Amino acid sequence: MKTPFALRRRILQSQLGAANLTALLITRPASWYYLTGFSGEAGALVVSRSGAVIVTDGRFTAQARQETSGVRIIQQTGALAVSVGQLVRSTGLARVGFDASQITVSTLAALRRASGKRARWIAAAGHVEGLRGRKDAAELARMRKAAALADRVMGHALKILKPGVRELEIAAEIEFQMRQLGASGPAFETIVASGERSAYPHARATAKRLRKNELVVLDLGVILAHYCSDITRTVLVERASQKIRKWHQAVQAAQWAAIEAVKAGATCGAVDAAARGVLAAQDLDQHFVHSTGHGLGLEVHEDPRVAKGQKQILEPGNVVTIEPGVYVPGVGGIRIEDDVAVHEGSTEVLTRTPRDLIEI
Amino acid sequence: MKTPFALRRRILQSQLGAANLTALLITRPASWYYLTGFSGEAGALVVSRSGAVIVTDGRFTAQARQETSGVRIIQQTGALAVSVGQLVRSTGLARVGFDASQITVSTLAALRRASGKRARWIAAAGHVEGLRGRKDAAELARMRKAAALADRVMGHALKILKPGVRELEIAAEIEFQMRQLGASGPAFETIVASGERSAYPHARATAKRLRKNELVVLDLGVILAHYCSDITRTVLVERASQKIRKWHQAVQAAQWAAIEAVKAGATCGAVDAAARGVLAAQDLDQHFVHSTGHGLGLEVHEDPRVAKGQKQILEPGNVVTIEPGVYVPGVGGIRIEDDVAVHEGSTEVLTRTPRDLIEI
Repeated sequence: MKTPFALRRRILQSQLGAANLTALLITRPASWYYLTGFSGEAGALVVSRSGAVIVTDGRFTAQARQETSGVRIIQQTGALAVSVGQLVRSTGLARVGFDASQITVSTLAALRRASGKRARWIAAAGHVEGLRGRKDAAELARMRKAAALADRVMGHALKILKPGVRELEIAAEIEFQMRQLGASGPAFETIVASGERSAYPHARATAKRLRKNELVVLDLGVILAHYCSDITRTVLVERASQKIRKWHQAVQAAQWAAIEAVKAGATCGAVDAAARGVLAAQDLDQHFVHSTGHGLGLEVHEDPRVAKGQKQILEPGNVVTIEPGVYVPGVGGIRIEDDVAVHEGSTEVLTRTPRDLIEI
Repeated sequence: MKTPFALRRRILQSQLGAANLTALLITRPASWYYLTGFSGEAGALVVSRSGAVIVTDGRFTAQARQETSGVRIIQQTGALAVSVGQLVRSTGLARVGFDASQITVSTLAALRRASGKRARWIAAAGHVEGLRGRKDAAELARMRKAAALADRVMGHALKILKPGVRELEIAAEIEFQMRQLGASGPAFETIVASGERSAYPHARATAKRLRKNELVVLDLGVILAHYCSDITRTVLVERASQKIRKWHQAVQAAQWAAIEAVKAGATCGAVDAAARGVLAAQDLDQHFVHSTGHGLGLEVHEDPRVAKGQKQILEPGNVVTIEPGVYVPGVGGIRIEDDVAVHEGSTEVLTRTPRDLIEI
């Protein structure tokens, strides 16, 4: 039986020729998992036209052998880059692609020294990222489950919010629930940001207690069977003022406009512009201080980026977050985020928690 | 009142002249926190001889202004590297140091393009890492608290281990406890590895249930007030065989030998050799597949590395883990880990959970 991993390697190998490469170095854990099933945290994968080799250290070699099939496993003897370079030299790989945005200056220098004069190192980004962006049916099925789990956890979180509870206690309860429900963990550090702190889009949970009439931004995601979800809702403790209500409606409308704009063939920049345009019409765009969304899959941030001016075109199989927000320093912030899958001719919103302002 | 951050910047600035640099680029979040107090997740810090500038995106500028003092905050307009390069050009910085192990090939290319012809980029590693390695009294006080919290959580974890419980449930309970007790989160994904899986030094917790007569490796750490702890204990569910008992005694003896070797003036390689020598005497060194330890502080892995052949000399203020292990594929693994601080003339073990084999 062919695993999906072997099939993915074959597709990648078929691209090497057109890219004029004899091999590709892959240093991102999510990418080597995608191509081999190896879930260790350290190492490197070299895919050549005829094979694949994982170089890793003694902590992970047994695991790599157990998790992979059709992949040679080499235990590194010294520094990883030196072992990879020696492999390139000994197998006579002539033109090896690497991702210049993933490799440090010192790693490239070490690779060059160890691989000898015959090998050439060629900056070649995006090959695996492009494949990973187009999720297959099995991947989409996993992402639906990860999204559904995030919905369940969000539902539970909304029940425990009340004045006097600390942000940290809520975050702890959220991450406990995730694991109880089968997640291997949170996809990122859960954000519970209340009051003025909600105006920081990436605030961490602190010992601060929730107070009446405060905004609370809850941003959470799970990793389930290797795939991530990511959802945000904004809650008002007690009753919202007219101003807060208006802001929330604007964010909700901006999000909906962006979700409507998500379709195969649209540019990511057009999706971003849809959200930004709605906020601009209400003179709130200066408070939308980040991009509209990001790709989601084996990593919580991956291609494609849904940001201003991005020319990348959405394709079937892409999954992106859509998460506009409005942040007013000294007052608070509002963000609504959902996970959206692009299909041929349709769009599917994976997360389903209601999007209206939640007053508790 | 001078903050510790301003003092640290002053020490760094005083080193720039000797290193023939006009400025240093700092891209590691733990390092910019160390020098400024800024706890945001994206950005860069440029420390010149006369000042300091944080470049960050719209999500973090308000936070950066609130958390820092005496630091200029610039909101990036496009890519971070471009904004940093433009800053270098506009302020006429001539020789800017960067850490080649922290900067990607593409980032360096973008920095060079944006900073213009006058600026030179000089590989210059270890300046901030060296300062961070020598913890001051306030940092050591925080690390004692982080270690004590890890001890409390370990104590709790040992109470909930029993046959039939899933690894994931134990990990969830451990991380829940951490936050309940005030940690901002785990310092790394908690490891609960039972049975044959304990032979993988970095196994993640899975849905596997504990069974009788299995080894269980528990490896956990907290982040408390920005500082990390890291502790491992190995448990046997029910009664250990003579062989397991002997292995555990060997690891315990190896750990003790390494802790004894930790002192100001000793090389890290000598500490590693002390552990390895004890295991070699019992013919177990081939099963000790990783290095003896690592520096600990704002990050869970930082300088100095306690590994084979490392010539770096331990200094007062260093805090390192000492964590030898023995891993036998198909059988299981044993690891014991504690956090050790180096003082002038003495050594302090920060984690205090008893080190004997735990049978439950």
